Parts: sequence; structure tokens; C-alpha cells
Amino acid sequence: MESNEDAFVLTLSCSDRPGIVARVTGLIAAAGGNIIQSQQFGDPHTHLFFMRVELSIEAGRHRIEQAMADFAADFEARWELHGLGEQLRTLIMVSREGHCLSDLLYRHREGQLPINVVAVVGNHPDLAPLAQFYGVPFLCIPVTPESKPKAERELLNLVHSERVELVVLARYMQILSEQLCRELEGNVINIHHSFLPSFKGARPYAQAHDRGVKLIGATAHYVTADLDEGPIIEQDVTRVTHRDTTSDLVARGQDVERRVLAQAVRWHSEHRVLLNGDRTVVFD
Amino acid sequence: MESNEDAFVLTLSCSDRPGIVARVTGLIAAAGGNIIQSQQFGDPHTHLFFMRVELSIEAGRHRIEQAMADFAADFEARWELHGLGEQLRTLIMVSREGHCLSDLLYRHREGQLPINVVAVVGNHPDLAPLAQFYGVPFLCIPVTPESKPKAERELLNLVHSERVELVVLARYMQILSEQLCRELEGNVINIHHSFLPSFKGARPYAQAHDRGVKLIGATAHYVTADLDEGPIIEQDVTRVTHRDTTSDLVARGQDVERRVLAQAVRWHSEHRVLLNGDRTVVFD
Amino acid sequence: MESNEDAFVLTLSCSDRPGIVARVTGLIAAAGGNIIQSQQFGDPHTHLFFMRVELSIEAGRHRIEQAMADFAADFEARWELHGLGEQLRTLIMVSREGHCLSDLLYRHREGQLPINVVAVVGNHPDLAPLAQFYGVPFLCIPVTPESKPKAERELLNLVHSERVELVVLARYMQILSEQLCRELEGNVINIHHSFLPSFKGARPYAQAHDRGVKLIGATAHYVTADLDEGPIIEQDVTRVTHRDTTSDLVARGQDVERRVLAQAVRWHSEHRVLLNGDRTVVFD
Amino acid sequence: MESNEDAFVLTLSCSDRPGIVARVTGLIAAAGGNIIQSQQFGDPHTHLFFMRVELSIEAGRHRIEQAMADFAADFEARWELHGLGEQLRTLIMVSREGHCLSDLLYRHREGQLPINVVAVVGNHPDLAPLAQFYGVPFLCIPVTPESKPKAERELLNLVHSERVELVVLARYMQILSEQLCRELEGNVINIHHSFLPSFKGARPYAQAHDRGVKLIGATAHYVTADLDEGPIIEQDVTRVTHRDTTSDLVARGQDVERRVLAQAVRWHSEHRVLLNGDRTVVFD
Repeated sequence: MESNEDAFVLTLSCSDRPGIVARVTGLIAAAGGNIIQSQQFGDPHTHLFFMRVELSIEAGRHRIEQAMADFAADFEARWELHGLGEQLRTLIMVSREGHCLSDLLYRHREGQLPINVVAVVGNHPDLAPLAQFYGVPFLCIPVTPESKPKAERELLNLVHSERVELVVLARYMQILSEQLCRELEGNVINIHHSFLPSFKGARPYAQAHDRGVKLIGATAHYVTADLDEGPIIEQDVTRVTHRDTTSDLVARGQDVERRVLAQAVRWHSEHRVLLNGDRTVVFD
Repeated sequence: MESNEDAFVLTLSCSDRPGIVARVTGLIAAAGGNIIQSQQFGDPHTHLFFMRVELSIEAGRHRIEQAMADFAADFEARWELHGLGEQLRTLIMVSREGHCLSDLLYRHREGQLPINVVAVVGNHPDLAPLAQFYGVPFLCIPVTPESKPKAERELLNLVHSERVELVVLARYMQILSEQLCRELEGNVINIHHSFLPSFKGARPYAQAHDRGVKLIGATAHYVTADLDEGPIIEQDVTRVTHRDTTSDLVARGQDVERRVLAQAVRWHSEHRVLLNGDRTVVFD
Repeated sequence: MESNEDAFVLTLSCSDRPGIVARVTGLIAAAGGNIIQSQQFGDPHTHLFFMRVELSIEAGRHRIEQAMADFAADFEARWELHGLGEQLRTLIMVSREGHCLSDLLYRHREGQLPINVVAVVGNHPDLAPLAQFYGVPFLCIPVTPESKPKAERELLNLVHSERVELVVLARYMQILSEQLCRELEGNVINIHHSFLPSFKGARPYAQAHDRGVKLIGATAHYVTADLDEGPIIEQDVTRVTHRDTTSDLVARGQDVERRVLAQAVRWHSEHRVLLNGDRTVVFD
Repeated sequence: MESNEDAFVLTLSCSDRPGIVARVTGLIAAAGGNIIQSQQFGDPHTHLFFMRVELSIEAGRHRIEQAMADFAADFEARWELHGLGEQLRTLIMVSREGHCLSDLLYRHREGQLPINVVAVVGNHPDLAPLAQFYGVPFLCIPVTPESKPKAERELLNLVHSERVELVVLARYMQILSEQLCRELEGNVINIHHSFLPSFKGARPYAQAHDRGVKLIGATAHYVTADLDEGPIIEQDVTRVTHRDTTSDLVARGQDVERRVLAQAVRWHSEHRVLLNGDRTVVFD
């Protein structure tokens, strides 16, 4: 997906009813736009309708925005319009393990992720050299039970001052406060090192080893105040055997974690993920 | 996907140019139809555009058909309109191995495939009891080098008399003549027991064993006069090891074959597969 | 794996300590046996040792058995010796859904599973024709809360009279009593229609749909009195999307269920699965 | 797998005949060694026997080596004894693409690969900073048709002076001369960016796109004089769709390449891969 000044991504969701697609494609045509591709989904359970359109329009985004505002008023729809290939301003948070960070920064530098990593924040200083190698500012914000409120304020200030649009918890081993979760809801992606809802909470690989499972996995999800219960964006698994110790599971699992997290970040930053209650619609 | 008298699937392909989606969704709206879901794809290489729409229309299909005829004239488009859930009249052809036939008939009886199996044809009588168990007529048409032209005429007569819309080669170990391939082009699905283009031709599992591959696979494709080169609909693989003999590969491969073939038949009969030159667009 | 009068499978487990392999391979050599292949595993956590040996011995099993009895006394080992390719006397239990039964009987007839299916028991009569098609006796033992004790006695009588060695719950929708679980422990394999420990209990596909997971799975495990907690033999998953309804998940899941169950039955009946506390060692 | 002065890996292969396992395990016991785990495989086609034993011996390797020399003379066997966890002296060769190098060096630093990367050689200077970040010497040896013999001599000198045991071609876009292949045979691992034998030669992703395959893959293999025909160590695939352009395939394929290459390097350096003619035995 290359950047292109005339190309946009439109996403919308609203209650399902006849005529939505015709109305939206009609207003795009009326504005002189051309649809490159689009996907729709009507959920038979929630009766919500979801749509993602890639379109080009030489006359600029103004007319589309005006028409969508009218549409949104009529259909009580939520919608967004983004330049196609525009890079999301992204903050990556880490602790000591670098496999996800290393992977995200490598892909970022290779142009495989439409994000602009404005900073890496760690609660430990260990990964500063890695961030520096990739030319990204690293900020250490230690967290203790006492300093947590202050640390979260510092984080939030950074989010605002850097106009951060996406926060990625790349094996950040701290739990965000309920308030912070609410404030950033829908814009924080976490990688959990298990195939949720199996093995919630701490030490999932040890739990997996004890239970004797034959596959282990990882789950990328939006962070909500309800720990490990946020809407799932992507999951994957890998096969393990009786020979694998807990530390083997950790090593094998890291491959899955970084792959799943990178996929989720790519889909999110391409505006392919729409929220459907506690679930996600992924237009891949 | 349930049958519903008011629900239809519209598929179309044409040269890509601005306004196609707006025109099609507009004509559906004008005919009083409602779009349930739709998918589009514009191929940047071939500059062809593909679309699949599921829609409901209480007033019947007539107005849509008229409007689509106009559209097709303007855009030089190929299009089809099918009742959603209408069962494709299907002929399954077999030799001696029953794993694919057993699987297709089981799924068919469980209502998992929108096909109506009008007959099973075998060049050997071995699988007659299996067809009979599932209540499907079985016809034995033996094939020898001498009898092949006559056998193919008999087959073609059956296709016409039973108004067969889809022929499935479920491990039918005979090569269809070039003429028959042409006559039925786009309506014959074959399962090849390798991950094409690896191991074309005969005895692919023996070839795979000799080469020492670590995965074996199967490929469902449309049959063309060019053997093993038809457009691929679906492929999958399974892991093997140095311990697997050729006959182990055969047994493991059969699981992949039947799964891949059933998936291809399902997609085809739900009108999800559109031809894009030698390739396919699959709106899954 | 072909039947061969001179070929055997020896399995054993005991506390790990130096010299086990040398002692066992030595006694095999002394008895005139030849090792075809063998696998060992020492669990660093439980300090248990597991071994599986395929061997041939022209002089018959007697000398090996004697030597193994001595070994077992010295090492406090559990061991078994089976003819290679000997068919395990197997009872399959079902309710109304036939996808697993159909698959097991098909594979059985094709010679892909070293089992001898002595009977199919259903708590409903629906699958009698399927069993009959494959030439296997079908017995209907209905179960109500009142009749359950009597039904289980009938079942147990059948197990004894038919010298059943393996019971396969092929989507048998009844919970066995704690007493029956204990009596048959280690010889009953169940297929659970989720990727355990996710979605224990009833209606796992509905639970999976509600949680919005991106993969669904199935788990074959030994049945214990602790429901859905028995040692896991095999698991696998398949990808799903937001478009899949609960009934789509059911249909897709059935493919995984039958594949996973067949694999577990094959491994068990080839004596490849050894119990390691609540976990399994699988010498695949 | 941790380093341990008393722990060793013994691998051997020879013509299959009765008594090998008993003899080897007996000589280990006689030398005061203890078998931690072992695996055997007898190939019914080539009639070759393969064995890998992890063992501990407090008295040092000397007695085992002496006994194995006797065994090898009797059985015409090839064998090797390595310290368990000893790091293989490894040279990584690259061109411009860094995804495999980045992955190998990251895993190496995390202690996930028992290798000691003595140098990275590139025919372009692009990846020097990456090597330097991980503290590994980088050497640029450009290759033109004219300079190739000289470049290969330089390479071979490096191999000898650094006592290199393993050469990894991590997307090194040059073909080694037949002579060099012979000289290093069995000690050079290449990653080919297709699922061999599909799409040999140049530009496999473009070939895969043209053929319309639904899965793409990667193959790690030993390099032989016969290009893309060397014994396969590991393969894997990932799913693609009609929407993926050739450059999408490249990006998705890189994930598979680096994963497959890392797995092959790990297995090789743990002495789990034994040559069986043009095929491999992998004791995973």
C-alpha cells in the first residue's frame, strides 16, 4: 500500500438497514471519487453494519467529508477518513524482552508497517540500545507501586505532546490503570503470550506446560479495563511436544508473539479493524 | 447460507474503470434490492475488476437482470445471477479410491455443500455401494484406450440430459480429452495430489518421498486442456517426516486432498470463485 | 505399520536413573531380538523415564517377557508388550452427529487404523445405518437421568463380554459417571470440541463466537473423573473470521474434530502415547 | 539445551543390521556413560541406520571415542561426538536484504542458537551496521564475474583461518562455484525463497504470483553443486490470496524464510540433522 495524496480509506459502522452501501457509494461517485476496493459486513447478531472503502478522489477530501457528515447524521454512523498510507503516530512500550520491539522496528524500517514510531518507552533501560540502533528516541519511565500514578501522567503527557495515535504494548509487563485504559480505549494494542481465553494472567507458558497442551499461541487484542478480555484482533499458534520445557515454550512462543503483534499493528494502522462490541471485524 | 427465495448472488467481471461499484450498487437500489454483503477486487496487473454481491429483493430477479444487461452492454462485463443457496447440479467422477467421494457425500447429506449430486460416475464399479448408501445413482463407465471416445460421449450425454452444472473429479484417474476439457471449461474441478506446481504428473507422493520434502499438499483446480496447469482454487499442506514412507504420505495426503476438494467445491458452488486469466479470485 | 508375527512394541515407564536404556537394549539383544526403532524421553520435572521400542524377535515373545519382568522388579517399571499391528478391540460411542464416526469407520475400513471396531453404541438410534454400512454392529443404549446407572452397567457388560480395550467417545454427548471413568481410566478417548483449556463445558462454539476468537480448535484427551481435564493427546485449530456464525464454527470445527480424534486413536492404538501424570508423552 | 562439560551428543549412521543399538548403548554403559535421550531411524529403502544419543559421562569423552572407533571399524559407520551445547563456529553470508541476518543475530544474542557467529560476509556493504550493532565483524567481499574466483579464495581463507564449521547463506544472492560447494559440502545451509521443488531459480515470488498459488513457502537446504537440489532440512508455508501482489508475497515470504532458516540452523547446530543420500533425517 503506497502513499498517494489522492487516495483515502473510509471506514464506517452503524445499525444495519437497507440502502447503506448504495448511499455511500453514491455519495462517493457524486463527489467524483472512484472506489478502488471495498468490503462490507452485516452482523446478524448485533445488527450492526461495517464498511471499509479505499477510494481515490482528485478533488480532495473535502466533498467526501461533507457528504459523510450528512450520511452520519441520517444513519447515526461512526466514520473515519484517512489518507491511504498515512503513517499512524505510534508509541511502543516495552520492559526487558526485545523480540517484539526488534521485530516491529525492523519491519518499520523496511517500510512494511504504515506507522511512524515517535518513541519507545521502557520501564527498564535494557532496550535503549536497540531503539537507538533504529534511530528512535527511547525514554525510560520506571514504575513502582508508588510511582505508578506519576509514571502514567508522564506517559499521558507524552501521548498528548507527541500526538500519539497508537500505543503498542510490546511485552510491556505492567498493567495500565483503569483510567488510562479508558482514556486510550481503542488505541492500545497488547500482545498476550497465550491463546486467549486459555491461560489468562501471569506466567501463561508455565500454565501451558503444566496442562500439557500440544499447541501454544499468542493473542493481540485491544486493551480494556477488563484485563485480558479486550477485543481480539489476531491469534496464532505453534506446535509443541512433551519434550519442550517451559523455557522452550517461551522461546517458541516468542516467534508467534512477534508475528501476531506485527500483523495486528499492520491491520490496525491500515484501518482494517473495526470494533463490534467486544469483538472485532477485520477486513483483511 | 440458507436458501431464501428473495436472496441472490450477483457476480461480475469486466475491465476496471471508475464508477463500476457505484453503478452496480445504484442499479440494485433502484430495483428495490438490498445489499447483504459484497466484495470487490481490482487486479493492478490485468486491469480487470471483479465483484460479488449477496442481495435480497422482494420484487424478484427480473428488474435486476434487466439493469445488469444494460450494465453489461456498457461495461463489456460478464455476469451471473443465482438464487442464494440454489443447489448446483453436480456430477462426481471417481476411480477406486473413495476418500474424497465419502467426504463429499457426507458433507452433502449434512447440508454443508450447496450442491445436488445427480450421479456418481466411476470407471470402476468399486465405489457403487458408497454412492448407494448415500442414495445417489452410480454409473459405471469403464475407460480403455479404445473405448475412451465412446465413454466421453456417454459422459457428455449424461451432463446434458441431467443438466449438470459442475463436474467434480474426486480422484478420477483418467485424463479428459482436450475437446471435453474445452467443452466443460470452468465447470470441472479436479483434486491433484500434490502442492502444484511441485510434482506434476503421475505418482506425486513417490516423487515427494524421493525429493525428501518436509510438507506434502494437495491442489484443487479448474481443469483445462493443459494438464495440471488449470487455475488454482485452493491448496493446503501437512507436515511429514523422514519416517514417513510413500504409503504413509498417501494416507496423510488423503486428509489434505478431501479437505481441499471440499473447500473448493463449496466456494465454487457459492459462486465465490471468479476466473482471472490463469488465476482465480476467491471471495471467501 | 504392517502386522508381523515376529514384530512387537514394547513400552515402559519408570523413575529415571542411569542405565535403563542399556539394560533394556541389552536384554533385547540377549533374547535374540533386534531393535527396529526406539524412542526415549526423560522428563526433567517429574524425573520419570519413558521408552517405546519396536523390535523383532524370531524366537517369540516369551524370553523378552521374562527378562522384562525381572527388569520391572528391579526398576519398579510399568511395561507392556504388544504385537506390532495387533488390532485393539475398540468400542465407539456416539449420539446424533456422525462426522467423527463416519471418519473413523472409513479409515478403519481402509486399514489406516490398527483397531478392530467391535461395536458402535449410540444413546440415539440415528447413526445405526452408518454403522451397518460399514458392517459394524450398532447397539442403542438410551440414557435418561433415571436410566443412567442401568445404561452404564449395560455398557460395562459389553466392554467385558467383548473384551474391549479402547472406548472412543466420538461426540458422545453424555458424561460418564465418576465410577465408570475410574474403571476404564487410560482406555477412554474423548474429543472435546474446543481448544482446551479454552471453552470447557457445554456449547464451546457459542462461547468461542461470543469471545470473538480468530482460531477454533479441538482436543482429544483421555477421560478422567475430572471433566475436560484429562491428559491431552492431540490438539489442532483452524482459522475463522468475523463472518463466521456459530453454526459456521460448528461446521468448520467438525473437520478439526474428526482429524484430531483420528490422530489420537491412531497414536493410542500404535502404543505411542504414555501417561506422564496429567500429561502425555507422544512418540510420534 | 545448556552447556555441560560432561554432556555429549553422539551421532552415527551405517548400514542397518541387527544389534547396532545394543552395541552402542552397551559401549556407552561400559564407559560409565548415561543416556539422557536417544533416537534411531532405519530407512527401509536405503537400508541405512541413523542414531543420535545425548549422554553424560563423568570420566570424559576418551573412553567413548575409543569404543566408537572400534564400533565404526566393525560396522563401517560414520560417527561424530560433540560437547552438548558447544557452539558451532559460524559464518553468515548476505547480500542486501537483512531480514534473515537480523533474525539470526537476534536469536544468537538471546542464546537461542548454539552457534558462535565469527563473522558476517556481504557482497554489498549495506548490512555492516546491523552486524556491528550485534558486535559481529563484517567483511565486504564484492563479487563480479571477473572477481568471483578471487572472492571465493578469500572466503575459503576466512573459513580456514577462523576454523568455520558452518556457513549460512542468509539470502546471499550469489551462486557458489561447484568447487566451493564440494569443498564445504554438508556444512553450508541456504534459504531458498520458495517451497521447493516449486519455483526453482530466480524470482520465485514472481513465478508464484503468475501461477496463482494459494500458499507460498521457503526451504532451508544443504548446498550442493546441483543448484536448488540439495537435501532439504526444513520447509514451511503461509497463506496468500488473490489480493497479494508480488511485493506482498515478498514481504509475507520473508517471515517464513527467516523462521525456516533459524529452525534449520538450530537443528543443524544441535546435531539433529543426518544425511540420508539426497534426503535428511531430522531428530527433532
